[in-house]
Formats: sequence, C-alpha cells, structure tokens
Amino acid sequence: MKKINLQQISSKISNYWSPGIVAEMNDYQIKIVKIKGDFVWHHHKKTDELFYVIEGKMSINFLDSSITLNKGELFIVPKGTEHKPSADEECVIMLIEPRGVRNTGNASGDLTSANDIWI
Amino acid sequence: MKKINLQQISSKISNYWSPGIVAEMNDYQIKIVKIKGDFVWHHHKKTDELFYVIEGKMSINFLDSSITLNKGELFIVPKGTEHKPSADEECVIMLIEPRGVRNTGNASGDLTSANDIWI
Repeated sequence: MKKINLQQISSKISNYWSPGIVAEMNDYQIKIVKIKGDFVWHHHKKTDELFYVIEGKMSINFLDSSITLNKGELFIVPKGTEHKPSADEECVIMLIEPRGVRNTGNASGDLTSANDIWI
Repeated sequence: MKKINLQQISSKISNYWSPGIVAEMNDYQIKIVKIKGDFVWHHHKKTDELFYVIEGKMSINFLDSSITLNKGELFIVPKGTEHKPSADEECVIMLIEPRGVRNTGNASGDLTSANDIWI
C-alpha cells in the first residue's frame, strides 16, 4: 500500500509508447505512458480503455473524427472503436484497462510492447 | 464519447461526500467527489477502490496507520481494508470502482449516498 505521484513516477520512463504498470485495482491495471508522435491504428475488441492526461496534450484520432485531450482531461475509448493516439510534443498519460491488454490491440508491429512491466 | 475535465466538472457538485458519476469503463464507474471533514469508517468487502486527488489534500486513515494524498497522487485501498477518508479543507477527488458500490461500504448512516447519480 503506497501512494503514487503520477508526475514524479513518469520520470522513470525513458521509452515512448511503452506502458509501465504502477498499480492494480482488482483485475485492472493503472499504467503510465510517455508518448510522442503517432501510434498505430488499432482497437481493443473486449474492453473500453481509459485515457487521462497527466502532462502535455494528446490527440486521439477516430475513423471519422478526432479529439484533443489537455492536461487534466479524461476520455474513455469504447471497446471495438478503431483509434490512433498521437502527440506533437512529449505527453504523459495514465491508462486504465484490464490486466493483459496489449497496447496495440488487434494490430502488431514495432510499437507492440510487453504488457507486464512494472515501474 | 466526450472528454471530461476533472477540475471543471467538480464545479457541478455542491454536497460533500456525494459521488457523481462522470464516465463508465466496462462495468467500472469514474466518480468525482467533493470532500471535507471526516467520513465514516468502512470497508468494501468485494472490491479495491482507486483514489486520486484532483485538487487539495486528503488523508485516508487505517486502523494502524494513515496516509496523506496530495494533488496528483493516486492510491488503491485494497478490498476488505477498513478505512476512513478525511480532509481538513475542501478537497476534490476521483474514485474508480465497480458499478453499484456503496460509498459507505459495510457501514451506513447519514453519509450513505445514492450511487447512481450522474453529473
């Protein structure tokens, strides 16, 4: 039982698009991710995904729209929804989703990350 | 699908200790709560509970210890753990827990709140 300062713990992350787990709530994981540039188009077939911006600004692109999230803003991507996160400048976000979810969802490629790394 | 600014939405809350739901992720709910003073001792038998401080400072008292959470800090209270949240000054927090969880857990009393209020 220890508290987590979301901004401070992000200093432990060096690679972009590599989620680090900081806590678990039941079978859900709280992950911190540093992002910059474009991620890949993907969806998560079985689960919604919570995005929360800790520092900076990001966009989530959908097939027919996009949304910009600023620091302190939260958004839930519904399950099955094709999306592509991106950030012009470095941005730190929190993700919450069930244990075992792969960052690239149905897609794969170089940005697919291990999904069991604690920081 | 709309984004939520956690600080701005808290202005819609007038009563202390009355959680307002702002989003759902699968069968979990994201709730905003304004708190001040002491809550009641209680536990949640079947679920962990995520606390995140949006504005201000709070404490969570346990039977043999306590922890202070500042703005930007996150803490998971494990299921079954007796706890009593408190705040000397007004504080705004986000809670995440499964749909249907009662704020006073196994306890009851005047601070028991409806758990299906959206804001």
